[in-house]
Amino acid sequence: MEVLFDSKAGEGRDYIENICIRAKKASQAISCAGTNAKNEALLKAAAKLVEKKDLILEANKEDISRADETGVRPQMIDRLRLTENRIRDMAEGMVQVASLPDPVGEILWGTVRPNGMEIVKKRVPLGVIGVIFEARPNVACDCSALTLKSGNAVILRGGKEAVNSNKAIVDCIREALSESGLPEDAVIFVDRTEREYVNILFEMKDYVDVLIPRGGKGLINNVTENSKIPVIRTGEGNCHTYIDDSYDMTKALSIVLNAKTQRPSVCNAMETLLVSEKAAGAFLPIACVALKKKGVTLRGCPKTVATVGRSVAEEATELDWETEYNDLILAVKVVKNIDEAIAHINRYGTGHSEAIVTENFDNAERFKREVDAACVYVNCSTRFTDGFQFGFGAEIGISNQKLHARGPMGLNELTSIKYVINGSGQVRE
Amino acid sequence: MEVLFDSKAGEGRDYIENICIRAKKASQAISCAGTNAKNEALLKAAAKLVEKKDLILEANKEDISRADETGVRPQMIDRLRLTENRIRDMAEGMVQVASLPDPVGEILWGTVRPNGMEIVKKRVPLGVIGVIFEARPNVACDCSALTLKSGNAVILRGGKEAVNSNKAIVDCIREALSESGLPEDAVIFVDRTEREYVNILFEMKDYVDVLIPRGGKGLINNVTENSKIPVIRTGEGNCHTYIDDSYDMTKALSIVLNAKTQRPSVCNAMETLLVSEKAAGAFLPIACVALKKKGVTLRGCPKTVATVGRSVAEEATELDWETEYNDLILAVKVVKNIDEAIAHINRYGTGHSEAIVTENFDNAERFKREVDAACVYVNCSTRFTDGFQFGFGAEIGISNQKLHARGPMGLNELTSIKYVINGSGQVRE
Repeated sequence: MEVLFDSKAGEGRDYIENICIRAKKASQAISCAGTNAKNEALLKAAAKLVEKKDLILEANKEDISRADETGVRPQMIDRLRLTENRIRDMAEGMVQVASLPDPVGEILWGTVRPNGMEIVKKRVPLGVIGVIFEARPNVACDCSALTLKSGNAVILRGGKEAVNSNKAIVDCIREALSESGLPEDAVIFVDRTEREYVNILFEMKDYVDVLIPRGGKGLINNVTENSKIPVIRTGEGNCHTYIDDSYDMTKALSIVLNAKTQRPSVCNAMETLLVSEKAAGAFLPIACVALKKKGVTLRGCPKTVATVGRSVAEEATELDWETEYNDLILAVKVVKNIDEAIAHINRYGTGHSEAIVTENFDNAERFKREVDAACVYVNCSTRFTDGFQFGFGAEIGISNQKLHARGPMGLNELTSIKYVINGSGQVRE
Repeated sequence: MEVLFDSKAGEGRDYIENICIRAKKASQAISCAGTNAKNEALLKAAAKLVEKKDLILEANKEDISRADETGVRPQMIDRLRLTENRIRDMAEGMVQVASLPDPVGEILWGTVRPNGMEIVKKRVPLGVIGVIFEARPNVACDCSALTLKSGNAVILRGGKEAVNSNKAIVDCIREALSESGLPEDAVIFVDRTEREYVNILFEMKDYVDVLIPRGGKGLINNVTENSKIPVIRTGEGNCHTYIDDSYDMTKALSIVLNAKTQRPSVCNAMETLLVSEKAAGAFLPIACVALKKKGVTLRGCPKTVATVGRSVAEEATELDWETEYNDLILAVKVVKNIDEAIAHINRYGTGHSEAIVTENFDNAERFKREVDAACVYVNCSTRFTDGFQFGFGAEIGISNQKLHARGPMGLNELTSIKYVINGSGQVRE
């Protein structure tokens, strides 16, 4: 780990602590802000993004030319690149979030106790949310919209490649906040890009309520391992589809092809296909050829290779069962039955999205009950795990941990609760 | 920190990892167990505790004599001590938990998407819960009952003073599990007492879903600082009561006395009394004398001391505003108005329980909205923050963090959710 502030640790810490204090202060104001003011800020920010698109594109150009110079991979540069259309999409996203219902203040439960005391459980903002992300500048925009609508303050720490683009975007949002009578520090960007600043941020548990890493496994692991602030892990998806003894060939084929090839780079794409012994003989040859035609490289267990031939599937290793390829590669395994399928999934899965294709009611029920994952599907593609597909109207990530939030996280998942108690002098006996 | 396994690190790690693997395996079975089986195990365990009380008391005697020898404080020995009555209370607690509704399987939300896919959000167990506690053996019993009923496996790590008592209690529960057809490893006790084992447990994030520390600030800080497993912080209560400009003297007096003196050692007791400038002249002399009569030591701000005299209140220091005394000591501060009261609470409070005594509607509403705490009271004692007082029928702790659970944690707070999706061949466009 680089240590950049050995001799001037105070400077780095002061900078981050100052940001955290400002965010915490802003969070107190924004947590009580009315829905109208928050929506006004969102709509103003959307308008500003479009209005100042030239400024943003210029900042983005700077980022890209520096990334080019320092030899950043073309794939990363593509993620980094903004266009007029991408800016319009970001703005449209903000308008959409403005149209969603405000989660703050929702009454979730209530009771009157025998002593006459009334207890009401209300939805309240989490407080200060830290988002640590990589090269995509749209993350700064999407996350700000969701945290603002849910009454939270956000501290954004993006990859160093996108620092100018992020700053230009955040400036628009902060201006909009301020013009709507809300504290601009409800959205704060960490503009120092050295790694040490992230390590200091990890210590700020007195100010920051939760950290959400958005990016690859390396980033997520670094945050989980080192943060003293609670973390929500998102986006690790080693997802399986299991073809059961009795299955419908049409459903099975289209689900498998969709789960693997419709967008292979994302976390809800299938990474391992499990096929029951009984189904393997008829299903595997047809499915594997269809997958190959779509450009998928197949890595099979010995039985798979024996069934479809070495020209269709190469031999898989233990590592393949654990790997999230995020690519047009698929591990294929023949399992004895649903027991072995569930055991395999619970061992190698990341608790994200798991599917069974079956016509058997009992097996469908067992799979849904015994598979330990955020989203368990019967006869549909794992690709549906998504806040928009679920009808939440938004998504800040897909949690694959069990604490606080699990599965697609919308506005509700960015809130906590508060018990409000009205009395008339009650004391405890 | 003691390092006990420098030369045989494998041994300590193997021991803990073995426990974690067994707990994880048991959690898969217990998560799908029916309510009847779980209730049967609870009732059997309760019966066994009473039946084997002599064995338990003998084990407890051993613990106490060793604690006596090693010079453990009398207060700690009191916490450690079991009696026939205390064992009966533990058993009764288990019977009570059996009578509570099973949270697992509750349907929290559901929808049918435009493509015909049905999404159902269900309550499921968290998985494996680690509880790290101190000298009270009843914690082993209470936590096992709650984790069992909510379909979780639990790893119990108690203080070294109570190791024999804890083992005897856990043996009863494990026997009951086994006799009810449930995996006995759903309740596992770490019987190695060296500190190093806790540090190894902190690393086991692949097996353990959450750690709940139950004990003093030192224990809680150690767990939060060092665990790689998500933690729920519980039981830190620097609680305030604010007497507003317009207040009812009878309510105010009885609430203040109750919040401070009814049970000063617990986390929901008041630690600082805030009084508005307007109320101070009439309220403080009466309240302070009444508190003194109950044996409370008062530490006041300059205005308080000037109002009630040095014979009644000593001078407070900055440290007093931050301190959770858990004792018959009270900090007292005169504040300008409700703004200063809210600012003081949001600065020094631990987000646990905060009360206002007021007859003014607007101020009551403002206090409830702007104070950032798990439980915010109008005209009642902070002492009500408790799972039983809230009608949950159980409590594993009072969370004063905002993630996952906030306030009293009952059975629902020991669960996560799962999305279950029924389709008929749907794929994503």
